[in-house]
Amino acid sequence: MSNYQAPLRDMRFVIHELVESGPICALPGYADCDAGLIDAVLEEAARFAGDVLSPLNPVGDRDGARWLAGTDGKGEVRTAAGFADAYTQFAEGGWMALPCPPDYGGQGLPRLLAVAVSEMWKSANLSFSHVITLTHGAIEALLIAGSDALRATWLPRLVSGEWTGTMNITEPQAGSDLAAIACRAVPQADGSYRISGQKIFITYGDHDMAANIAHLVLARTPDAPAGVKGLSLFLVPKFILDENGNPGAHNDVYCTSIEHKLGVHGSPTTTLVHGDHGGSTGYLIGQLGRGLEIMFVMMNSARLSVGTEGLGVAQRAWQLASEYAKDRVQGTDVSQKSGERVAIVRHPDVRRLLMTQRSHTEAIRALAYTIAALQDIAHQSPDAAARDAAHRRVELLTPVLKGWSTESAVELTSMAIQIFGGMGFVEETGISQYMRDARITPIYEGTTAIQAADLAGRKIARDGGQVLVGLIQEMRADRNRLAGPNNPQLQAIAAHLGESLDHLETATGALLEKMNRQPAAGLLVAEPYLKLLATVVGGWLMGKAARLASQAIEGGSSDPFYRHKLASARFYADHLLPRSAGLVVTVQADNSTLLGLEDEAF
Amino acid sequence: MSNYQAPLRDMRFVIHELVESGPICALPGYADCDAGLIDAVLEEAARFAGDVLSPLNPVGDRDGARWLAGTDGKGEVRTAAGFADAYTQFAEGGWMALPCPPDYGGQGLPRLLAVAVSEMWKSANLSFSHVITLTHGAIEALLIAGSDALRATWLPRLVSGEWTGTMNITEPQAGSDLAAIACRAVPQADGSYRISGQKIFITYGDHDMAANIAHLVLARTPDAPAGVKGLSLFLVPKFILDENGNPGAHNDVYCTSIEHKLGVHGSPTTTLVHGDHGGSTGYLIGQLGRGLEIMFVMMNSARLSVGTEGLGVAQRAWQLASEYAKDRVQGTDVSQKSGERVAIVRHPDVRRLLMTQRSHTEAIRALAYTIAALQDIAHQSPDAAARDAAHRRVELLTPVLKGWSTESAVELTSMAIQIFGGMGFVEETGISQYMRDARITPIYEGTTAIQAADLAGRKIARDGGQVLVGLIQEMRADRNRLAGPNNPQLQAIAAHLGESLDHLETATGALLEKMNRQPAAGLLVAEPYLKLLATVVGGWLMGKAARLASQAIEGGSSDPFYRHKLASARFYADHLLPRSAGLVVTVQADNSTLLGLEDEAF
Repeated sequence: MSNYQAPLRDMRFVIHELVESGPICALPGYADCDAGLIDAVLEEAARFAGDVLSPLNPVGDRDGARWLAGTDGKGEVRTAAGFADAYTQFAEGGWMALPCPPDYGGQGLPRLLAVAVSEMWKSANLSFSHVITLTHGAIEALLIAGSDALRATWLPRLVSGEWTGTMNITEPQAGSDLAAIACRAVPQADGSYRISGQKIFITYGDHDMAANIAHLVLARTPDAPAGVKGLSLFLVPKFILDENGNPGAHNDVYCTSIEHKLGVHGSPTTTLVHGDHGGSTGYLIGQLGRGLEIMFVMMNSARLSVGTEGLGVAQRAWQLASEYAKDRVQGTDVSQKSGERVAIVRHPDVRRLLMTQRSHTEAIRALAYTIAALQDIAHQSPDAAARDAAHRRVELLTPVLKGWSTESAVELTSMAIQIFGGMGFVEETGISQYMRDARITPIYEGTTAIQAADLAGRKIARDGGQVLVGLIQEMRADRNRLAGPNNPQLQAIAAHLGESLDHLETATGALLEKMNRQPAAGLLVAEPYLKLLATVVGGWLMGKAARLASQAIEGGSSDPFYRHKLASARFYADHLLPRSAGLVVTVQADNSTLLGLEDEAF
Repeated sequence: MSNYQAPLRDMRFVIHELVESGPICALPGYADCDAGLIDAVLEEAARFAGDVLSPLNPVGDRDGARWLAGTDGKGEVRTAAGFADAYTQFAEGGWMALPCPPDYGGQGLPRLLAVAVSEMWKSANLSFSHVITLTHGAIEALLIAGSDALRATWLPRLVSGEWTGTMNITEPQAGSDLAAIACRAVPQADGSYRISGQKIFITYGDHDMAANIAHLVLARTPDAPAGVKGLSLFLVPKFILDENGNPGAHNDVYCTSIEHKLGVHGSPTTTLVHGDHGGSTGYLIGQLGRGLEIMFVMMNSARLSVGTEGLGVAQRAWQLASEYAKDRVQGTDVSQKSGERVAIVRHPDVRRLLMTQRSHTEAIRALAYTIAALQDIAHQSPDAAARDAAHRRVELLTPVLKGWSTESAVELTSMAIQIFGGMGFVEETGISQYMRDARITPIYEGTTAIQAADLAGRKIARDGGQVLVGLIQEMRADRNRLAGPNNPQLQAIAAHLGESLDHLETATGALLEKMNRQPAAGLLVAEPYLKLLATVVGGWLMGKAARLASQAIEGGSSDPFYRHKLASARFYADHLLPRSAGLVVTVQADNSTLLGLEDEAF
């Protein structure tokens, strides 16, 4: 199996042509960034991902992270061979700092670039990439709400990658239901808090890759109200800092076990126990009772990050299936009489599978990068109205990306196995790892049901669909531009897109009506609605890509990339967009029998 | 995790009411069979599956089959603890003999009963069930083409389960491409053949569960023509029989390794080397050069069997997800103001997921049992025209079931993991095994692409769609009967079914046109076509089930099963049938660009 090769050509196309890096680089704060720098960073990241992270991916899968029991329940984790060394190189290369603010040693590069670089880490080694995601999450929480003192102490060394971060949310009785969190935080005379309780499913909750860990812990003070309003956020160091700000004594937080999982074996999923040996020290981040709000901001970026995981895993699985299909000789070409044995990429159904992987993955990439650029605008634009509009669209599209990309990743990695045939079922081949790894992505950072409920409730019903209607209008206008030129490929795409936009409008009306009349009826079709909206948004972006590609071809470009992009966009319109026709029927369905049915029927 | 509980109520409904066991039991040869016997056998099988096979399922997954190297490459396989003992009980209970002909010790029970019993084995322990499937395959090959001597020697002990069977087809260079098979068979003076060559992916190619193994081996005699017409079928015993017909000396066929797989760990997937130690003895089955024909007959029943695997695995995953959803408390009921924590089965999206699993699985069961009953007619009817019509319909529907059921099983088992949330990703929970196990089913016994090509080419294009048109007419007539009564549930189902039948007719026209004009264009949409046909056939059978259920309710039945069945059928019509609206667009698409595109674009 070859090492990961970043799809640089498509990444550059999406960044520079489709999303347009020009206006993003012109935003205040990005003065040092231009297309040349972006391309240079992409190439350097591609090398690191391909040469360093990718070869460790099967190692992490095979050997996994290991738990050492230690004594008295003070367990610890050893990551798979090579992970710690790769992490040192990663931090020293300045990769953790790439999207972070310059005030704390970051490089302050646009999110539009950072998302592409992050796609590479996730493609090359999803298990490794988790420690980056979590550390960026901790950085973000401190930026949002940390006191000056906490920021000054912790941010430079998180940004440099010298230390890493975690999110301590889940407890056995509190998974999707955060209101059930029971972990306690008791205020101490010195202003710190004594933390106690058990947290499960904590990614990189312990490891041997960095000198300290900043655990961000959701917990409840003694007099806090019940429910989510009683949750506060605390920074709990693995090693308490000494007077010089260096890691000192081990805090009373220990890893008591790690999970044996379906996938991402290289990424330790730990159970952490706080306060079983005298008391764990934590520091309040932001105000009491505002833990969930901070967590929600972090969670939104974590959701974009997990959406990018779906993209990365789907991309890599396609790459491997594509290589195999060009190499594996089996059967004859149905269009040739010679009877000569051919590579399976010549077989029509293998072409269909590979092009499904390609076009679907490209559509997801276009959406992920679009959201990243909108985040840049939302954070950096000097124009308050532009910031606000971008922020609202990010809010709308985040659950769409997260839900769609991750569900699709399961489907697309399964397709990759199918292309390998019987060899795909043999673990040594390596392709099955991608489906196993992908399977967690629709679950963590909010299941698909949670994304769909967020979309239907907070993002659409709450404003009566206003932000969405703006997006639909823009998609309509772009569709009409597509139908204009006398180009049969673009017109075919425009025809499908027009029908799918009709489906989207009908479905949106039905969803709003249900959400207003009986929320349960709306939530029952929220997931099909999410898929419908995502499918149409993907078709819109692939349509835009097709127009750019056809302009480049008409402009005389001989780069085959543009022909391939046009074929991929056309395929999306023929094979993926039409799913909207079924989904709109489902969104409109009357499920009242189902909602009233006794539990025994399920 | 509770043991498997066979869905006896739905099995009885499908067997007696939907497919109608009455006329099947009235066929010549089934004189001893009636509804009472069927129910008694189902209950007995359910007990064996639940009490004996189900507890071994996680054991097989965790410990797997092991390979012992032996000396000189003479390796052998040990199955997981408990498998050998369970197999002895299985054989002694007469379960292997259930569907086999009485002439050789079989019980000669209808296939309509056998398919339900077989679903239970596959649900309870897919890995274990493989040895049954393969042994029945060997029995069938001998019945079709074995000489009287071979039959007399081998059949009684295969039927009793004392010995087991295998299919030796695949070689490293010959997977889907059977013409590339290179294994050699050289005639000997005594009428036997000397077999040599390597076979891979041989299920239960060695094990410790029975006293002998009959390997059915596709090989090529020295003067055979190239391609599939040069293939002959041989019976190669693991132990050559002595003069008394008992296992004697070890034949020169040895297991040189077993695969480390994504799933079905309990089922050994072996590499067998024939003839590396002096020569392996084989006996010709049927005529020289007719190996593939015999294999094709076997393969058709093997495809029904794998279709039933998809059903069994989907059923069991649904059962476990359903239990979990009623047990796991998380969040509040969106329709209740009390704020009380509820089991997740109360959440609308969980209801949607569970009902998707239920209704989809029930539709697959209805199709699988329908095919089994058609097989009974095809084999036992005194009326030649009825036999022929049933045979043609079995031929048409076999690839539909195999492709649809297995692809759906991957989707439905993945859904079951989703219901378990983070716990679903933890291996100890046990639910992920079902997705891992299911993933092989769309690959072996002909990938989905092969099923789709078989459907589009041999089963539809070859007769100009004649058999299919007969089926569509029958589905139309049943739909019209559904729309008739003044029953809003049935009318809603009829409305969706009518639209989907329109889609099917449009798509069939498009497929036929493509297959005639340019087969590659037809094959490129054959898989979406297969899914469309399957979805509509499923909707038709669920519609019939809904009519029966509503008649039972109107007739005064208080059995809640009928209300649940009606809800399940309605859900299928609202949530699954509408997929046809997208698929028909895809089947009609012009993929000429794609077919002509250079390989680099994929």
